[in-house]
Amino acid sequence: MEPIYFDHNATTRVDDAVLEAMLPYFQQEFGNASSRHGYGIAARRAIDKARKQVAEAVGVQPVQVVFTSGGSEANNLFVRGAVDSLKPGNLFISAIEHPCVLKPAQAIARRGCDPWPLQQLAINADGQADIAAAAAAMQTNKPGLVSVMLANNETGVIQDVAAIAELARSHGAYVHTDAIQGLGKIPVDFTALKVHAMTLSAHKIYGPKGAAALIVDKRLLLKPLIYGGGHENGLRSGTENAPAIVGFGVACELAVARLAETAQHVAKLRDRLEAGLTGMGAAIFGGQAARIPNTCYFALPDIEGDTLVVKLDKAGFAVAAGAACSSVNPGQSHVLAAMQIDPMLARCAVRVSLGRDNTLQQVDDFLRATQRIVAELRQINSLSF
Amino acid sequence: MEPIYFDHNATTRVDDAVLEAMLPYFQQEFGNASSRHGYGIAARRAIDKARKQVAEAVGVQPVQVVFTSGGSEANNLFVRGAVDSLKPGNLFISAIEHPCVLKPAQAIARRGCDPWPLQQLAINADGQADIAAAAAAMQTNKPGLVSVMLANNETGVIQDVAAIAELARSHGAYVHTDAIQGLGKIPVDFTALKVHAMTLSAHKIYGPKGAAALIVDKRLLLKPLIYGGGHENGLRSGTENAPAIVGFGVACELAVARLAETAQHVAKLRDRLEAGLTGMGAAIFGGQAARIPNTCYFALPDIEGDTLVVKLDKAGFAVAAGAACSSVNPGQSHVLAAMQIDPMLARCAVRVSLGRDNTLQQVDDFLRATQRIVAELRQINSLSF
Ligand SMILES: Cc1ncc(COP(=O)(O)O)c(C=O)c1O
Ligand SMILES: Cc1ncc(COP(=O)(O)O)c(C=O)c1O
Repeated sequence: MEPIYFDHNATTRVDDAVLEAMLPYFQQEFGNASSRHGYGIAARRAIDKARKQVAEAVGVQPVQVVFTSGGSEANNLFVRGAVDSLKPGNLFISAIEHPCVLKPAQAIARRGCDPWPLQQLAINADGQADIAAAAAAMQTNKPGLVSVMLANNETGVIQDVAAIAELARSHGAYVHTDAIQGLGKIPVDFTALKVHAMTLSAHKIYGPKGAAALIVDKRLLLKPLIYGGGHENGLRSGTENAPAIVGFGVACELAVARLAETAQHVAKLRDRLEAGLTGMGAAIFGGQAARIPNTCYFALPDIEGDTLVVKLDKAGFAVAAGAACSSVNPGQSHVLAAMQIDPMLARCAVRVSLGRDNTLQQVDDFLRATQRIVAELRQINSLSF
Repeated sequence: MEPIYFDHNATTRVDDAVLEAMLPYFQQEFGNASSRHGYGIAARRAIDKARKQVAEAVGVQPVQVVFTSGGSEANNLFVRGAVDSLKPGNLFISAIEHPCVLKPAQAIARRGCDPWPLQQLAINADGQADIAAAAAAMQTNKPGLVSVMLANNETGVIQDVAAIAELARSHGAYVHTDAIQGLGKIPVDFTALKVHAMTLSAHKIYGPKGAAALIVDKRLLLKPLIYGGGHENGLRSGTENAPAIVGFGVACELAVARLAETAQHVAKLRDRLEAGLTGMGAAIFGGQAARIPNTCYFALPDIEGDTLVVKLDKAGFAVAAGAACSSVNPGQSHVLAAMQIDPMLARCAVRVSLGRDNTLQQVDDFLRATQRIVAELRQINSLSF
C-alpha cells in the first residue's frame, strides 16, 4: 500500500490536468520561447497564457508576473533586488519568515557595502505578527522594506498582511508578502493585501517544481538576481521553463476554481484530526489564531517529533517534524522559538498538512496509529527511568 | 508536416528515455527531497543518482555538482558568487560570452561598492580568443577572475580554455568555462580544461528545461545567489526540481554514450550543408577554426538574416538569426562584432544547429528551399532598385 501523504505544505503531487497540460511542451512544442520560428512562437504563446492564469489568480495584470524557478528564487529576487535599488534603510521581516527571506536579509545586514539594519517583527504566542509592536518598532526605526508572509508554513497561521502593509506604507516603505502557503487555501488578492510584491509557487498547489513567480507593483524598482538575455522584462534572464510555467498556470486556475471545496474538505479533516490529538493530550501550535484550513502543527508532550515522524513513516504516514522545508538544516524551529514555545515542547512538534486527496478514513487511521506509537514510546520511556 | 528543427543550440526536444525517467517524479515519487519520510527519501535518492551521472559526464566527484535552475543561473552564480567572495581584482571575460556571463560582469563593473574592472579578452577573425593578446592583457591588468566559454553558441567555435586557464592560474586567478554548448558535442573534461568552475545545462542536450549545474573545484569560494534552506551545500537554496534533475542526469549519461556517433552524424550533415551554402556564395563564420560539429553560422550577402529566417520558417525549417538565445533583445550579434565582421554582412547571419534526429534528406531539402527563397529575394531586391 502507498503511504498516506500528509505533507502538502512541503510539496504536492502534480494534478492530472496539470501534467496533461505540460506534456506537449517536452517533445512536441519544445521550442525556446525566444526563438522566432514556429516552435518558439508556440512556447511563447503558452507562456503568455500561463502568465494570464497566474495573474488572474491574484487579481493583477499579466505584466506584473515575473516567472522564476521557485519560491526561494522569487523571495531572494525581492529582498536582494529591492535592497539594491533603494537607499539603505531598515529591513523589517517577521521572525517567522521562511529561511529564503530570513537568510538573504541576514546576508544584507552583515555585508560590508551598504548594509541594511535588520529589524524583526515580533510574533505573539498564537503565531501572529504583533501589529502594535510593529507600529512601535517602525516609529523607532524607519522601515525601507518590509516582508511578512501571508500564512506560515509550519503553523499555518494567517498574518494580517494588509495591516502591516498600511503601517509600512505610512512610512513610505515597500512591502512584500510570501503568499506561497496561502494560495489555494485562502483567497489571495494582491490589491487587498496592499503589498508591492508577492511570492507564489507552483509545487505547493499541485503544480510542478521549477516554476514560481514574484508578482510586482509597477512602482517597485528591482535589480535582477539573474542577469542575461533580458527575459521577464529584464528582471529574470534564462530560457523559460515552458512546461513548468504551463503547469503553474493550470495549477493556479484550478487552485482558485477549487478553493472553496478544498478548504471545506481539508478543514473538516483538520478539525477531526485536532479533536483526536487534543484528546491524546496534544498541544496545537497557533490553534487560537486564524489559520489556513489544511495545517495542524501539534506536539504530544515527551514524544520527540523526529521519533514520531520516523515511526509514522514506518506505519505508512508521511508527515513532517519541525521545519520540513529546511530539514537539510535540522535544529529547533525558529517559528516556535519566535512564539516563545518551551524548547522541550518545541522538540515534540509534528506538522500534518492535508490535501485534496486525503480522506476522513485516513485521518482516523492516522489517529489510531499515533495512539499506538505513543503508547509504545511512553512504555519505553517509562521503562528507561 | 512538422517543421524541420535546425535550432539545437537554442534548445532540444526531450529524449524519450529522459522523459520516461522523469515521469515517475511528477505523481508517484513527488516528494520534497528534504522531507524525511519515504516520499522525500525517494526524491533524495533520485537526485543523488543524477548528481553522479552529471559528475561522471565531465570527470568530477558528485560533491562538485551544484544544481541550478538553468545555465543563466549557474553563470550568474559563478560570476557574482566568486566576485563577492574575493578581494576586488580584474574580471576577464571573452568578448563573445553569452549575455548571462557578460551582463552580470558589466553590472559588477558599474556598481558603487567594490566594483571589479571589466577586461575583455580579444577575439580574432576566426572567432577564437587570442591567447597572445590575453597574455599581454593579463600582464597589464592582473586577473582575479576569468571566464571563457568552451564553444560559442553562435559560431560553434571551440576556445582554447586550457591555455587561458594556465595563463590565468599563473597570475593566481580563478577560471570558469561555460561548457553548455560543448557537452554532448565534444569531449568535456573538467580536469583537462584546468578550470575552477564549469557550467552545464540539460536542455541543450535533449534534457529538460529547469536543470543545469555549476561544477566547482573545492578550493573555489562562492557566495550563494539564492539564500535559504541551505540546499546544495548551502550554495543554492530551494526545493530541488527532482524531475528535471533526474532528466538532466539521464541526458548527461546519454550525451556521453552517444557522443562519437552524434558528432560523426551531425558533422557529415554540416559538411554537406556548408558545401551547398558556399556554392551559393555564403560566408561561413568561424569556418577556419575548430568548431563543435553541429553548428553552421553563415551569411548570404544581401539576404537579411531575419528575413531569411522568417521565409524558412514558412517553408518548414526552424533556424535562428543572429543571437537566438537573446532575441528578446534584438540587435547586432556581439559575437560577430567581436570578430570584426562587416556589420552589413553580420546582418545576414543565420545559424543552423543540427541534432541527432536530423537527416541528409532534410539538409538537401533545406538547401533547395534556401536557393529558391534567395532567388526570390534577389529578384525583389533587383526590382526595387
Ligand atoms: C512559505 C514558504 N516560502 C518559501 C518556500 C520556498 O519554496 P521553494 O523551496 O520551492 O523554493 C516555502 C517552501 O519550501 C514556503 O513554505
Ligand atoms: C553558451 C550558453 N550559455 C548560457 C546559455 C543560457 O542558458 P539558459 O538560457 O538555459 O539559462 C545558453 C543558451 O541559452 C548558451 O548557449
